[in-house]
Formats: sequence, C-alpha cells, structure tokens
Amino acid sequence: MNAAIQLYDTTLRDGAQGQGVSLSVNDKLLIARRLDQLGVAMIEGGWPGSNPKDIEFFQAAARHPWQKARVAAFGSTRRVGVRAEGDEQVRLLIDAATPIVTIFGKTWTLHIEEVLRTTRAENLAMISDTVRHLVANGREVVYDAEHFFDGCKADSAYALDCVAAASEAGAATVVLCDTNGGTLPREIALMTAQVLSRVRCRVGIHTHDDSGLGVANALAAIESGATHVQGTMNGFGERTGNCNLTTLIPILQLKMGLPVVSDAELAHLREVSLFIDDVANQNSNPRAPFVGAYAFAHKGGMHVNAVNKVAASYEHIPPQLVGNSQHILVGELSGRTNVFMKARDLGISLDEKAPETRDILETIKGMEAAGYEFESADASFELLVRKALQHHRPFFETLEYRVSVRHSVERRYEVSEATVKLRVRDAESYTVADGDGPVNALDQALRKALRQFHPSLDEVRLTDYKVRIIDSTSGTEARTRVLISSTDGRSTWNTVGVSDNILDASWLALAESIEFFLLRREMGPKTA
Amino acid sequence: MNAAIQLYDTTLRDGAQGQGVSLSVNDKLLIARRLDQLGVAMIEGGWPGSNPKDIEFFQAAARHPWQKARVAAFGSTRRVGVRAEGDEQVRLLIDAATPIVTIFGKTWTLHIEEVLRTTRAENLAMISDTVRHLVANGREVVYDAEHFFDGCKADSAYALDCVAAASEAGAATVVLCDTNGGTLPREIALMTAQVLSRVRCRVGIHTHDDSGLGVANALAAIESGATHVQGTMNGFGERTGNCNLTTLIPILQLKMGLPVVSDAELAHLREVSLFIDDVANQNSNPRAPFVGAYAFAHKGGMHVNAVNKVAASYEHIPPQLVGNSQHILVGELSGRTNVFMKARDLGISLDEKAPETRDILETIKGMEAAGYEFESADASFELLVRKALQHHRPFFETLEYRVSVRHSVERRYEVSEATVKLRVRDAESYTVADGDGPVNALDQALRKALRQFHPSLDEVRLTDYKVRIIDSTSGTEARTRVLISSTDGRSTWNTVGVSDNILDASWLALAESIEFFLLRREMGPKTA
Repeated sequence: MNAAIQLYDTTLRDGAQGQGVSLSVNDKLLIARRLDQLGVAMIEGGWPGSNPKDIEFFQAAARHPWQKARVAAFGSTRRVGVRAEGDEQVRLLIDAATPIVTIFGKTWTLHIEEVLRTTRAENLAMISDTVRHLVANGREVVYDAEHFFDGCKADSAYALDCVAAASEAGAATVVLCDTNGGTLPREIALMTAQVLSRVRCRVGIHTHDDSGLGVANALAAIESGATHVQGTMNGFGERTGNCNLTTLIPILQLKMGLPVVSDAELAHLREVSLFIDDVANQNSNPRAPFVGAYAFAHKGGMHVNAVNKVAASYEHIPPQLVGNSQHILVGELSGRTNVFMKARDLGISLDEKAPETRDILETIKGMEAAGYEFESADASFELLVRKALQHHRPFFETLEYRVSVRHSVERRYEVSEATVKLRVRDAESYTVADGDGPVNALDQALRKALRQFHPSLDEVRLTDYKVRIIDSTSGTEARTRVLISSTDGRSTWNTVGVSDNILDASWLALAESIEFFLLRREMGPKTA
Repeated sequence: MNAAIQLYDTTLRDGAQGQGVSLSVNDKLLIARRLDQLGVAMIEGGWPGSNPKDIEFFQAAARHPWQKARVAAFGSTRRVGVRAEGDEQVRLLIDAATPIVTIFGKTWTLHIEEVLRTTRAENLAMISDTVRHLVANGREVVYDAEHFFDGCKADSAYALDCVAAASEAGAATVVLCDTNGGTLPREIALMTAQVLSRVRCRVGIHTHDDSGLGVANALAAIESGATHVQGTMNGFGERTGNCNLTTLIPILQLKMGLPVVSDAELAHLREVSLFIDDVANQNSNPRAPFVGAYAFAHKGGMHVNAVNKVAASYEHIPPQLVGNSQHILVGELSGRTNVFMKARDLGISLDEKAPETRDILETIKGMEAAGYEFESADASFELLVRKALQHHRPFFETLEYRVSVRHSVERRYEVSEATVKLRVRDAESYTVADGDGPVNALDQALRKALRQFHPSLDEVRLTDYKVRIIDSTSGTEARTRVLISSTDGRSTWNTVGVSDNILDASWLALAESIEFFLLRREMGPKTA
C-alpha cells in the first residue's frame, strides 16, 4: 500500500448535484477556500461546458492564491466524430486555466451502444484524443472511468482497455467510478487490483452511497492499492450521495495511518462540516460519523457510567481529534472545552473558576436549548462573552420596531416600511424607512437611526442572509434561526438571531451585526 | 458461506437508545407486528431487568400469534459473585417467557478490570453459569460478546475464551459485537474467521455505524461465515446508530443471493421504513439507500436523458423491488426530457408538438431563471401544468394582503397581524387574523377567508416551511425562495414561492398549497 493518498474533493461539482443543494459562485469560493485551509490536495470546481456559472468560478479561482490545493476543471471526452481540438466543451476546459483537468468517459458497453450510440473503437479514440490534447496543452489529466465496475462485469477486457487508453495517452491518474453505487467491497477490491496490474499511472476511486457502502468501497480500493480518492464533504451528491469525506478522512488518518491532512487541521473537521452545511443551507446530520452532534453522545445510563470510568469504553476515538466533543446529557449542549477553545481563539482567556465563566456557560446552554447555534456566528459569540465579562456596554438599546408590508395585486403596488425606536447615548431615536422587503426596510431604518452618531456605518454591507426553521414539524409556528454575514470591505463577521417570528429573528441578527461592527471600530484595528 | 442467514432485529431495544427515539409499549407492539409481517426471524423486544415498561411488552407479546418471528428478551450475565439462579435480573429474563433469551457479557480485559472490577476467571464463570441456567430453563440462548473486537485487539486469546465459554455452556449463537463501531471491515473478517475455527455453534455479528461502516462490517463478517446478523430498522441507535437493516436486507437478498425475507415482502421495505419512522416520530432520511425518497431521484439533465434510454444506466437495482420508485427532479439543469417524464409521473401526457407544451417549457424556463425550483415542489409543478392545459380554473384570486408586525421591547408586547382580500366565486372576501409571526398570521387570514366556501380546509396543516436566499451575495435585497410542505393527514404536497420579499414568497407558496388541496379535493379520490 502506497502511503501517499491524494485527496480529491468534488463537493462543488458532484456534490452540487444533490437534491436541494444549489451553490452560487460566491458559495463555491467560500467552500473552496475552506477546503484549501483544511489541506485538501485537489478541488474540482465545476463543469464549464455544462454550467456557465462555473466559468465565473474558474476566473475567480485563477486569481486566488491557493495554499496547497490545486483546482480541477471537470468535463467529458470529445463528442463522437469530431477532433478534440474542435470540440467546444473541451476548449472551455482549457480556457478554465486550471492546473488539473478531469474528464470522464464511457467504459460500459451498454452505455456505448445504448446511450452514446457509437462503436467501441470510436469510444477508445475519444478517450485517447482528449487526454492527449489536454496533456499537450500542459494540463495534468485525471481520467474518470464512468461506470467502471458495471463495465467490468459486462466486459472486463474492454473496460480495462478504456483505462489503459487513458493511461497510455498520458493521464496522470485513472479513476474507477462506481457511478451507480451498486458494487460491493469485495468486487471493488478485485477489480481495482486488476487495473493496477494493467496500467502504470496512479489509480483512483470514486464511489457513491447507493448501497450504504460509499466509504467502505473507497477503503476497499485503497487497500488494493488505489492512491487517489474522490468524495464530497458531508456526502453531498445525487440520490443517496457520494463517498463522505468527513467520514473517510478520519478513518484514513486515525485508523489506517494514511495522513491526508495535518493533525491540526483534522481537529477542525467538525467545524468545516458545519460551515459547508451552512453555506449550502443544509441541515447538519446529527448522526454523521465523527462530525455529527450525536457522534459522541451517550444516553444509556450504563454507558454514561462506563464512559465516566474509562472514556475508551464507548468511544472509538477521542472526539477532540476531529473537533467534536463528548455529550453526556440529552440535548444540544456545547461542551465546556468548546467554549474555552473558542474564547481563546478570540483572544479572551476565561478563568475556569470565575463566576462570569459559569454565567457564560449557563447562558450558552440556555440559548442552545432555545435554538441558537454559534458555530457559524462568531460575532454573536464574541458579543455574548464580552457582555458577560463587562468589557462591553451596548451602543444602542432597542425600544420598539414595527414592520409593515402591503401588496396590492389589484392596484399593482407593494410597500415595505419599517420604523425603529432606539435609545442611543441617553437620547431617543425614532426613524422610519422603506426597503425591498421587510428585512431590508428594518436594515435601512436601523442605519438611519444610528448614522448621525456613527457615520462609519455606511461602510457596512450585508453579504448573506440565511433562514433555517429549527423544529420544522409544526409548520409556520416553528422557531426560526437567521444567520447574517456582514462586511466592511476588509473583514466579514456573522451573527445569529432566533425567535418564533422570522422578522424578530432577523432584527436580532441585524442589530448584533451593527453592534459588533461598532465594537470592533472602538477597539481599534489591532483586534479587527 | 452458509446460505441460511438469521435476521435479528433490535430496533425495539438497541434502536430505542437513539437520541430522540422513545417508544411506548403500544409503539413497540406496532413495530414488532410489522417486522413479523416483513418476515424478520428474531425480534428483540427489550430489557426487562433495566426497563419496567418492557415487562409489559413481553406480557402482550406472549399472547400475540406471531407469524414467523420469534421474540427475544435481552439482559446481561449474572452479577459478580452471585449464583445465576439467585440473580433478580436473570429471573426477569426467564419471566419474560420468550423462546429466545439474549444476554451480553464482557470480553474486553479493560472492561473487566476497570468497569466490572473483577477477575478474568469470574467473568468466564458469569458467562457459563448464566448461559447454562437459561438453557436448563428451556431457552434458546444468544450470547452477545460486548466489545468483542476491541477485546480481541487487547487480548485475543481471552476474547476467544469468552465466546468459547458461551458456546460450551450451550449457547445456540455467539454474536461478535463491535460495540464502539470503530473496527474496520478487514479486521472484522479476520477475527470472525478466528471465532469460527474455535466454536461449533452459530456465529453472529452486531455492528454500529460510528465509522460509517455498520453495514460494510456486517457484510465482512457474513462473507467470513457469520450466519446471524443483528441490526435496527432505519439504523436507529445510540450515537450514529446501528447496522441499518433497510440497507442490509436488500444487499443480502438482491446482490448476494442470501434471502432473509420473501421477495413479496421486500417490495414493502420502503413502506415499513416509513411506518417505523412515523411510529417513532422521526423524520425520514430522504438520502437513505434503497428506501429514501431521493434514492432513485435523478437531477442532472444528462443523467435523466440516459435514464430515459436505459433505466439501468444510473440505477443499481429496479426501485420497485424495495417498494421505491424513480423520481425525476425538475431542477435547474432541467431539459425537455425532465419535464415530459415528470408530467408522465403525474398521469399527464404532454403532446410534444402542441403549443401548450411549448408554453409550459417556456414558463418553467422563465420561472427557473427567476429563482423557482420545482424539484421539491411537485404540487406547484402540477398546478402550473394544469393551468397551462386549461384543465384548472383557480379557486380564488388574490387582490391584496397586508402584514404588520410590531414588537415593543419597552412595553413587552409583540403583535403579528395580517389582512387578506380575495375574490372567491365573484364575491370579495376581506379578512383579518393574528398569528405567531407574520407567516402564521397570513396563513390564518387566508383560511378564514376561504373556510365558509371550503370547510374541508380545516384538515390542512403545514408540516414544514423552508426559506432559502437564492443569490446570497446581495444581503437582504436578495431573492427569497420559500418551500412549504402541507398535509391533510393522508397525503403530503409541496409548493414553492419566489420573490424579493420574504413575506410575498411565503404568500405565494401558501396560496398554492391551499389551491392544490382544493384541486385534489375537486378531482376526487382517484387521483389523490
């Protein structure tokens, strides 16, 4: 087994095929940067030939100073009967200006005959021509053999010819894809070994979770000698999803001695997982291995007792290795350690025995029980800690707000108006503004109220606004969590608000965003 | 490999340890009867010595005429230093009057020393005595070797002595438990083979999903010769859950030729899975292999095209074998094919050349460009198609609505009020209502306006409300997409609304939900 495993993330391309997942160019850049920080070797950004939005992503990616990651553009082999040089989709792959180009091609005779409707010889030529053309243009080529295992079962000699064609044409890696996710681990192991004895380039594996075996199948290939593995964060992907990298990475690193990221970065895995769910506006799976909220939660009285005696009793790894923590009580309580670590990250050192510290822990516990979540709302967390430590006196106090939306379809008009009454420096400020929708109107009225005291507020812009229903079983009466991202052009910060009322939750997050900006401004550039 | 695999369900005992799962005696009976119908060989009902409610379950179970299943009571070996006959917990196991008794005992020296705090010899005696006593009382004994694989890694000779002690004392089956879920498939395979060469009774496997390998580990043991497998429906269980039987059963039966239920019963698997989620009040996992709502859902235009040509292209099994079906998602990558197939699913056949068909495609394209998404909003898609084909005249027309929210922090009050003006059957209806938040107020006012015309509306409940900001780069001025799920207690449907204004988007989705319910009601039960 070769110890250098190449980690290839396709969250932005295959993951974006998942139901309900829809990523803007900005979302993709946020995720890609976080993956780069995590230490992922290769990041597949999209398919320029299929999705015009992806072209924008590659333009931005070309300008970004990546730490470690190399970006890959994804596409297919040339069409039937044209030259690779003359194929528009192939040209767009080169235009993407990425160090790596990944192309997929057919391997399964069923597909060649029934879907592509061409000959086996032409399919081999499509593979060779396209790989050769990309290599001639200076690209490192990854060749994804679509339906490789189904192809092998139908005609293994031909399936092997396909990957050999890619290898001989200069592909750096041929990747065996279990596209339908129906193959079993022992089949994967056998067929991967066959490929390794046929080609001389690197061999990779790309699996799907249709049989609940996405991770197990990737492991089977790696144990047979594959040294490149493709998957998505949180297992995003079409149907049941792809091989879940948040499961695979800790197995490789902690259980098989095959490091793919640094240990320091591995300790942020849960955080990265939550971040990506937030950006994609997905609910986090609490039962996810390693990174889920329940992954180290103990309910049975006997287990809790034993865990108290010896942690290893019912924990297969120390949870902090993946940034998770042990949960003993039923509920969503944040561990002390998280709070201490997070405060330390902000440069605030908490004294474990001080009464303020106990207050902070109690407050957070209560707020989490009410639906708050601070993983993606550092600014709200920092405000909470600074208020408790009495380092911070609020810049304004909310007395009242009112929002009104009137939409007349008959008379073709629509008005959103907000009024805001605040106490600022012992004076009362009472303002009204309109806006595009109720939240924008609230934002405008709040700024209007504060602008005379803090003209620098004009620099603040909201960059993102996310709404999540927490207990979705009771329809519109459920609790709402609003996350807001703001920027002043130099840094960005995130705040959270929770309420039964969507506008109230929005107001809380808006007010904290402005409060946080003013606090940072007051503290000076050192801490910004 | 022995073809007769014994399926042992522990949903009612180990599954009930899952966070958020809490089953009444009646819930347990409902689930057990459904499992019996499915053809599960053995059903573990609970732990009489640990949970008094479980005693009631066994009393009811003793009176029930089971079709095929045999019921097992679960407990532990006798305590340290007492006789099995004198152990209260063991007595309760016999009192449960089940054909099978399953007991667990220690295997891992760490546990014997640090948790049990006894000697290795006494632990072996605890196993032998208890098994022998239960066999003498006419029970078939299943012996669960807790932490077997961790025990093997620490001291494999002793771990093997433990299972041998159970076997020699008369246990029908010894079950190797990966209690912490941290073992890898190749380790499971090796250690299972070792046990098989040591004991002469049946060998079983019990796995957890902490490494995402619950199913893969069960398969590894079965391939090594285990012929008894334990798991839970929908993977319920502590932390990340147990081996998921809704995944394992179809793999054994359809891919490995190891039937565990009849083919006719397998075709009800999705139904059983949903039924158990309902009884346990859990949200169904749409991404679950085989039985999930997305398991055979196709989104990418290219995939849909290929699925249309050859179903096996992107489906690893025919979905109807497990009672599931193909779903075509009308998503952002939708082409003509998606729309045609989706309409066909709804029983509407579109004539490719008719002008209405071109209109529908143009309308969908325009709405998708404006931020609509129909993949999770079947009801909105159906309304759109029926309107275009002039099969449907709206039940009401929106003239105007107004929403107002006032929150006074100073005076501690909060009011959300909505007014709605509609045209219904040529009359005007003008109503006002308050609610918990602005969307609930709109919902209340709309129902109030329509209730006199359609009293059946009282049956409709919103079950989910989701908000997504579509282009999140422009903050609160961005477009908002609202998805609403509704139910009348028999079926559920989903609608979508998009607008710059979150309340307007909510209104659109709400109005379509009600419209769809009235349409279905009018069309009669045949199409419902």
